[in-house]
Amino acid sequence: MKCICSIAAAAVLLGTATAQSFRRLGACPTLGCIFPPDQADFLAGQYFDIRLEVHQPVNGSEVIGLPLDERFTFTVAKKGAAATNATQYFKLLQEPKLEKWNFTWYEDYFARDAKTPSVVNVASKAYRRVALYEPGEYTATLNYNNGSKTVATWLVKDLAEERKAKNIILFIGDGMTTNMITAARLIGHKSINGKYQTTMAMDKFPVLGHQMTHSIDSFITDSANSAAALNTGHKSTVNCLNVYADSSKDPFDDPKVETIAEMFHRLTGGHIGIVSTAYIADATPAALVAHTRLRSQYGAIVDSFLNGVQNYTWTKAPIDVIFGGGAEQFYPPSLGGVTYQNKDYYQEFAKANYSIIQNRTALLAAKNTDKALGIFTVSNMAKWLDRNVYRQNLNQSLSPTGNKAPALDQPGLKDMTLKAIDILQARSGKDGWFLMSEAASIDKMMHVLDYDRALGELLELDDTIKATIAHLNRTSSLKETLILVTADHGHGFDVMGSVDTHYLAAQNVDRKKRSAIGIYEESGLSQYINTGNLTYTDSNFPSNWDPRYTLFQGLMADPDRRENWSVHKSGPRVPARAANGTTDYYANPSDGEGGILLNGTLPIENDQGVHSLTDVPVFAMGPCQELFGGVYNSPDIFFGMAKCFGLARGKPSEY
Amino acid sequence: MKCICSIAAAAVLLGTATAQSFRRLGACPTLGCIFPPDQADFLAGQYFDIRLEVHQPVNGSEVIGLPLDERFTFTVAKKGAAATNATQYFKLLQEPKLEKWNFTWYEDYFARDAKTPSVVNVASKAYRRVALYEPGEYTATLNYNNGSKTVATWLVKDLAEERKAKNIILFIGDGMTTNMITAARLIGHKSINGKYQTTMAMDKFPVLGHQMTHSIDSFITDSANSAAALNTGHKSTVNCLNVYADSSKDPFDDPKVETIAEMFHRLTGGHIGIVSTAYIADATPAALVAHTRLRSQYGAIVDSFLNGVQNYTWTKAPIDVIFGGGAEQFYPPSLGGVTYQNKDYYQEFAKANYSIIQNRTALLAAKNTDKALGIFTVSNMAKWLDRNVYRQNLNQSLSPTGNKAPALDQPGLKDMTLKAIDILQARSGKDGWFLMSEAASIDKMMHVLDYDRALGELLELDDTIKATIAHLNRTSSLKETLILVTADHGHGFDVMGSVDTHYLAAQNVDRKKRSAIGIYEESGLSQYINTGNLTYTDSNFPSNWDPRYTLFQGLMADPDRRENWSVHKSGPRVPARAANGTTDYYANPSDGEGGILLNGTLPIENDQGVHSLTDVPVFAMGPCQELFGGVYNSPDIFFGMAKCFGLARGKPSEY
Repeated sequence: MKCICSIAAAAVLLGTATAQSFRRLGACPTLGCIFPPDQADFLAGQYFDIRLEVHQPVNGSEVIGLPLDERFTFTVAKKGAAATNATQYFKLLQEPKLEKWNFTWYEDYFARDAKTPSVVNVASKAYRRVALYEPGEYTATLNYNNGSKTVATWLVKDLAEERKAKNIILFIGDGMTTNMITAARLIGHKSINGKYQTTMAMDKFPVLGHQMTHSIDSFITDSANSAAALNTGHKSTVNCLNVYADSSKDPFDDPKVETIAEMFHRLTGGHIGIVSTAYIADATPAALVAHTRLRSQYGAIVDSFLNGVQNYTWTKAPIDVIFGGGAEQFYPPSLGGVTYQNKDYYQEFAKANYSIIQNRTALLAAKNTDKALGIFTVSNMAKWLDRNVYRQNLNQSLSPTGNKAPALDQPGLKDMTLKAIDILQARSGKDGWFLMSEAASIDKMMHVLDYDRALGELLELDDTIKATIAHLNRTSSLKETLILVTADHGHGFDVMGSVDTHYLAAQNVDRKKRSAIGIYEESGLSQYINTGNLTYTDSNFPSNWDPRYTLFQGLMADPDRRENWSVHKSGPRVPARAANGTTDYYANPSDGEGGILLNGTLPIENDQGVHSLTDVPVFAMGPCQELFGGVYNSPDIFFGMAKCFGLARGKPSEY
Repeated sequence: MKCICSIAAAAVLLGTATAQSFRRLGACPTLGCIFPPDQADFLAGQYFDIRLEVHQPVNGSEVIGLPLDERFTFTVAKKGAAATNATQYFKLLQEPKLEKWNFTWYEDYFARDAKTPSVVNVASKAYRRVALYEPGEYTATLNYNNGSKTVATWLVKDLAEERKAKNIILFIGDGMTTNMITAARLIGHKSINGKYQTTMAMDKFPVLGHQMTHSIDSFITDSANSAAALNTGHKSTVNCLNVYADSSKDPFDDPKVETIAEMFHRLTGGHIGIVSTAYIADATPAALVAHTRLRSQYGAIVDSFLNGVQNYTWTKAPIDVIFGGGAEQFYPPSLGGVTYQNKDYYQEFAKANYSIIQNRTALLAAKNTDKALGIFTVSNMAKWLDRNVYRQNLNQSLSPTGNKAPALDQPGLKDMTLKAIDILQARSGKDGWFLMSEAASIDKMMHVLDYDRALGELLELDDTIKATIAHLNRTSSLKETLILVTADHGHGFDVMGSVDTHYLAAQNVDRKKRSAIGIYEESGLSQYINTGNLTYTDSNFPSNWDPRYTLFQGLMADPDRRENWSVHKSGPRVPARAANGTTDYYANPSDGEGGILLNGTLPIENDQGVHSLTDVPVFAMGPCQELFGGVYNSPDIFFGMAKCFGLARGKPSEY
């Protein structure tokens, strides 16, 4: 036995030493897996599933020559108490049934090139919708392979059940970093002799924090996984929405964790709203109630906004307000839509008594007492810069009706957010509300290196925050509402100086074009303010998006591209194009005219930038604001919000 | 008159519209200049100089055809009171004498290429060592050119004179951003399933802020200007140390502002210490007491540590502790030194009863009751990575004695900082102390794209902070000491994934090498921890600096270079080399072996990276910590520290 254990340990060590870019199963370095894994924290009374897996590597560096163990056992113990079989511990009616499957993975890039995948057989069980109520430390133990053992330490946080906030609004600037906020301030706010005469709404928040955004099993995250951490207090794997990633093929059987929206509704009857400038099935809006291994299951995600989780018993948290893009997941296949079970989701929502709203005019006119579904365009919503400055770019066949007309009358994030608040206020009464409002295209425009549009979206988010505070103040709800502003991850962006675009254009050689860049004292002052005559009903946006001296700005991980550091007037940027019929991307010949040709650093199948590691800022104002100062991990946002809503429960309870 | 005014206005508008990379005089967009300029804030009782300039453009777009006005007038008025001639207002013995000079500048890069400078004649006066004592708003008015007027609004802050902290320690991570802290945490701290088992000392500070680092006249700063903002509450121009930049040639006649160290000593008798891993005349350490337009006046800066400002009556603030590098500004020209007035500054400091310390052994043994000058190497001090891992790189002729031996026995930032505290504690008694401790080579190593060494320096700073807190706690001084950790500016750095260095090295084509980069879930976990066997007496550093899977990290503004994302074992990186006898920099052929050749974006005369715009973090702990939360401008750090020391004065006073 001891011998087997030490062979296993050596094999595992070998496995983890070589496997990095690919891993057998991220949060399971050994051959016996428990999800939620070691170090997981829980809110008392939060529902979760447990998934156990025992792996039998068939080939590759981890083979230990044992048959697949189908007789593994699993116990749970509160610290200081005896270990109890999990089925008994959670008082389940029966032992979960054994499941079996296999999967493949590559040990590294050499194996991928050689097309030599490693095969793994799996024996598994899942315990569905359990909860831990008593605060403190727990030990979950998987015994497998005749003496091997995986131990997970779980912590149930001891939070008071007292509610401090009636409402919470969580603003997400997707991909937004401190660097971007600094740049947005520079182009949107006037400064005299180094002193800003106005500042961002975010700058005025009393409490500042930083949250760490890394995944459970990789240090870079995507928006699904990071949004899940904010919504559940559990970090997970890239592409996961409120589940831990198991190795099975089914994207809907992975172990779920209850979200704050679900708990808030289940325990207090609170009302929920979702606003995003993305297609509404995108990861960040989806993360309020969706549970899937694959964020790309858009149809099912839209269904879960209406019907919740369907394949297992789970918390149902109906959404009062859903505003965003992504009409193609609503109108039926007959109009070109791609919907869950080919249904017409406008009809499905209408049957459930939602107002169906498809433009800004209807949005502003909608009754506040009705549930509302507002879908304003196919795909992502138009960018602030295109809605307000380069309006000709709206002339595309993106009508939310599916009739191929343009979607000209789109609301902005501010319109949607203020209306969502009005509806939630009208409908929630004493129960309060939880609203997530996302400026999605900060991220989307940073991905395509369209810095101007990204900063425009960031300024729109800030304008929305400013308007929200004023609106809540007018209705005397400000002091009972916790307002949080944060991001889900970063992009490696910064501003390093200015670019004399006239000089750049006048040079014929790339090395000479680089002389157009002004660093340090030659960066000068922002010409986006006070050098143009653009004015808006929104506050604090550039008066000139196309000054002679622009920002020398950029990302650190790019495809090949040509940079001219000028606004892209014809719509969002397309920095790279693939060679015919391949995924081999080169600089787009029609992008960045007159600019400098730059080779990228990303693998050549990437046509855009990627996320980065940096901690992202958290701005807090209102009840419990003091919980959000300093530096902490992303799940702590969930625990802070849950504490502020008083959602911990020492015993089973329903609203 | 009206006509002349409007011509002037039009000319000025034209001037400011085209002049961006270069400006006639940064903080003076009109032809009549007041320094300190409009929007300047002052601590009550803080000494400052006033410089007035009237400009007569001789050629270029700003010419208005008026003779040089030598009869300009200048008044000061407290809000609500009558304007008074400044000489009377400040009760000076006589009107300052008129000065005249001329200078040239380029209107843009085209003018620079064409070698067509603009010439400006100047008439000027300077009022030396004045102060404003009464809190509130003031109007300073320059009347010139027969009816033109420049008005500066000045604010004297109303701060209580109550002292809250006995001591302040200001840690500066030069060039340190939130992005870098996140990366350093990743390589130095162990994480299990997304939860760090230890975190940075900075992460544990109770209060977090962001400060804006921009210059008064450009949005990118250097370390002199930004350090001056932290030390005086006055932003200025790149290369300026505690002065506003005037247009005269003399780098020592620019209008000065009193620093916190100078006020602290003058008003309370407090003691002062300076610690840096840079050459000690570098901008950040110099900024405690030096006053010059040119940070490169190293000899004079060293002299000012000992003798203060010599050419004008000014506050003398002797320094108790000076620890750092830069021996070449101390040993005499006979040994190859470049010193002020060719003196031997070891001798000069010895004559003033300083212990002269030249290695770590002597540092640890030095008496705490003596003033101490510790100079441990020529140039910048050795990097943590070379002192602890790649020690063979210390074999260079850098002995602080000037005898060309290696400087093998160098202390680290922690040794220097703890000893500085011991000396300050022993010498200051009830008067308390102010210590600035700088991790200088975070910046210096980011400049040369040597990410590993930069993060090593950051981890050393964090280890120093941890040790400082423990040390102050042991001596019961922690609760009377405000600890601040911040930076002076950023570099556009982030981490975007991992690099399989084996796979990278095995490919022959750059585009294929890019496939070695793992993004999102392929980034995996940090291999700098737990994959090696390096151990140190310092805490929380990588156990392996050279793992197979390294960080895919970088800057956004670079010279041409070759990136292999591997540690540079032979000493700090040299990314670019100039073509023979030119300043035309190309990728250094001997750097980044096996890596990807990347073209830079910076002007080709740059051999290294540059500073960036991003707001930088501020961590605060101790008395007055609450003053440093949220988002604010860099001068607010000065005002926070001054408030905490109770340095505002409603009437003239000396200690």
